[in-house]
Amino acid sequence: AFVTLATNDTYALGCLVLANSIRQTKTTRKLVVMLTDGVTSSMRHQLERVFDVLYDVDLLDSRDSCNLALLGRPDLSCTFTKLHCWKLTQFDKAVFLDADTLVLQGVDELFDREELSASPDAGWPDCFNSGVFVFKPSEETYAALRDFALAQGSFDGGDQGLLNLFFRDWATKDIARHLPFIYNVVSQAFYSYLPAFTQFKNDIKIVHFIGQVKPWHHSFNTITGQVQLLPGTGHDQNFLQLWWNLFIKHVQPALDPTVGGLVGELASLQIKSGGPSVVFLDDSDRRLAWERGQMDYMGVDSFENIQRKLDSKIEDRS
Amino acid sequence: AFVTLATNDTYALGCLVLANSIRQTKTTRKLVVMLTDGVTSSMRHQLERVFDVLYDVDLLDSRDSCNLALLGRPDLSCTFTKLHCWKLTQFDKAVFLDADTLVLQGVDELFDREELSASPDAGWPDCFNSGVFVFKPSEETYAALRDFALAQGSFDGGDQGLLNLFFRDWATKDIARHLPFIYNVVSQAFYSYLPAFTQFKNDIKIVHFIGQVKPWHHSFNTITGQVQLLPGTGHDQNFLQLWWNLFIKHVQPALDPTVGGLVGELASLQIKSGGPSVVFLDDSDRRLAWERGQMDYMGVDSFENIQRKLDSKIEDRS
Repeated sequence: AFVTLATNDTYALGCLVLANSIRQTKTTRKLVVMLTDGVTSSMRHQLERVFDVLYDVDLLDSRDSCNLALLGRPDLSCTFTKLHCWKLTQFDKAVFLDADTLVLQGVDELFDREELSASPDAGWPDCFNSGVFVFKPSEETYAALRDFALAQGSFDGGDQGLLNLFFRDWATKDIARHLPFIYNVVSQAFYSYLPAFTQFKNDIKIVHFIGQVKPWHHSFNTITGQVQLLPGTGHDQNFLQLWWNLFIKHVQPALDPTVGGLVGELASLQIKSGGPSVVFLDDSDRRLAWERGQMDYMGVDSFENIQRKLDSKIEDRS
Repeated sequence: AFVTLATNDTYALGCLVLANSIRQTKTTRKLVVMLTDGVTSSMRHQLERVFDVLYDVDLLDSRDSCNLALLGRPDLSCTFTKLHCWKLTQFDKAVFLDADTLVLQGVDELFDREELSASPDAGWPDCFNSGVFVFKPSEETYAALRDFALAQGSFDGGDQGLLNLFFRDWATKDIARHLPFIYNVVSQAFYSYLPAFTQFKNDIKIVHFIGQVKPWHHSFNTITGQVQLLPGTGHDQNFLQLWWNLFIKHVQPALDPTVGGLVGELASLQIKSGGPSVVFLDDSDRRLAWERGQMDYMGVDSFENIQRKLDSKIEDRS
């Protein structure tokens, strides 16, 4: 199975686009989404339309021995959400994909790989990036990961640091466990070594929109049907357009406009109807991030953008 | 042998610091520097003091069949300068190191690796970074590289693109040919995935100051003995300080102040003598880059820096 994770309605949007991108490849594999209670029942219904299996991850379920062990360590609970995928033992083998990835070509051949196979992380390539990985569901591995996490923690506070410590021979043991980078091309690779990106662009199978700005944060022109990039994100126009094309075609028409937040805003979009030509979709989302202190100084919150926004407001009033 | 390359006096400075950093590890291997005629005879003498072998690379030497073949392709001559290392057939095995690398710990174990071994490039990790690689000198390989270059070219206009196409099974064939990233940690890795950098920092064996700004471009405070970083380069203060410590101790005292350019400026530095406390070493160098259109908008040539420089000049006059 292909497995992804939704911890709230916004990430559920990512899951929906991801699932549609996988369906396009005519895969024979099942699609599984893991859900936390941050997802509304409205979005659950949307997910049911495209995923074969919805798997609830309840971190406070005390019937789960792992959760019991983690009760004293709330700092690890977030890390552990993703690791619940190892409990999907109804599947022999599975591929995990983050909600901010997009599949461009068939990738069923990934199921020929062994645990743990993953692509190198472009930031520190002796680590793998845990946004895409092949694994073998197993209660034993899940318990071992729990014990390891309790003893060692994670060097980056997330699942990637933990998984890299747990599967620590990845960098040195077996080249077959190195997925080619084309299975997890992170946005920063688009500009870090541009000639390589240009050379290998057509081979890319999965893109990964890492960073704080996600595909759903960009603006979308409902008249032209074109995505309009926020500056400084390093995202690629063409890949973002593919994301939005899937979103507008398969996801948006079924969204419930009575749901709050970004999902409600998106559900209300009037495509090609003569409404506002550019919709800044993400203001509430971004304000939330700002209030939580996660300002993105180089990206959407840079002085230039703030200035532009202020200017546009001033113009509105004059 | 360890092999590096100097195409002008400034890069020769890098070679001198690099050689001293290798000598510090008490290596049993020879040190070789390849030289083009861009290096002055004064700097040749400096290089002779620390390198065992000086190897002249004369791209216009028509007795070299490779050069003959390349005569009609001046675009490839620069790419080929580095590849002359394959002609050092007096050595069974060799390790190439770019002039902007610095060795922090003994790396003689690299000679146990086979051709072609290299670390993944942090920008596109299915490519190796050609700043550090293990190779086997051979006239046959050199000729094959020449023919390949003439037929295929290089996708990035440099040796890295060419070598990655030539040794194209590097990413998929043999994990032993993947040098750990700690043998070629590029500056951008210091901030791309900071937790990994923090976690593995003490394991780093070779740092690679990639990008347009090189260690010798930063300012140096002759009173405190501290390097002062230009903003926006992504360089790490501690590693840069190591570079400068070696430079001041082993290289600077012997430099000839009558040589022009950066070398002359550096030779004239009065360490701890009460001269100017901060020396901007690189003005002429940087002006040259600017005139050639290689402005570094995000780094030393950013508006902020230009503004700061203008301000300091205005203050000087008032």
